[in-house]
Amino acid sequence: MQCPVARSLERVGEWWSILILRDALNGVTRFEAFQKSLDIAPNILARRLRALVEAGLLERRRYSERPPRDDYVLTPCGRDFQPVVIAMMAWGNRHFAPEGRAVTLVDRETGIEADPILIDAVSGRPMSDRIFRLTRNAPATGERERQ
Amino acid sequence: MQCPVARSLERVGEWWSILILRDALNGVTRFEAFQKSLDIAPNILARRLRALVEAGLLERRRYSERPPRDDYVLTPCGRDFQPVVIAMMAWGNRHFAPEGRAVTLVDRETGIEADPILIDAVSGRPMSDRIFRLTRNAPATGERERQ
Repeated sequence: MQCPVARSLERVGEWWSILILRDALNGVTRFEAFQKSLDIAPNILARRLRALVEAGLLERRRYSERPPRDDYVLTPCGRDFQPVVIAMMAWGNRHFAPEGRAVTLVDRETGIEADPILIDAVSGRPMSDRIFRLTRNAPATGERERQ
Repeated sequence: MQCPVARSLERVGEWWSILILRDALNGVTRFEAFQKSLDIAPNILARRLRALVEAGLLERRRYSERPPRDDYVLTPCGRDFQPVVIAMMAWGNRHFAPEGRAVTLVDRETGIEADPILIDAVSGRPMSDRIFRLTRNAPATGERERQ
């Protein structure tokens, strides 16, 4: 599938994968720490970590030779997933936190809670349907199809 | 789970759900149109649509009485999922489109391709680790735990 959303989901289209990336973005690197945070069976965690390494989002890094132990660090591609996780967090906080927001992002300097929104870096305008429209491009030539 | 990312994934934590929302955000409402776009088995599509209705992201709307036919329209909660899909699209376009970006968002006025980034609406600053930190709140009292 050429759709970039579908291509992203080929890499992360599974509940655990996104939660593993969430933890990695919060600084988790060790197998045991992922397991504790996620309350996940070791064989499933091992499989999801391996898939994220194969997809190029995490890489293994040896931190002990005897016994041999690796941890898992984000690649640049994995770090770039952060806006997706933040957008999910903002959506969850807005709609599914009737008792109050359990996790929020605050400005390190002011301590004020952030309100994450998507804007277009080119024009500075908010990403809304009224302002932007989807365009399908012909990948081979870069030419645009008629809509 | 109290994490807002986990709560979001309870609603959409499945490949098809996110692709169905992507299509709904692009204006698809009819069962047949989802099926054609997604190339998905009818029973699986019916199940995913029902789950999204139960989760409060889509609602059924009768468009024909004889024969009885419903289509599926986004609720306000479902429309609010758009930043997640746009963030996924931007990530997919950046990392997994070696032959060129198949789908992009362009400014309706200028035709210039958008570069979607997340900023904090309060301070206007980009959402980055250096500027923001995660805070866990105690939901019952709203009090902050020590980090």
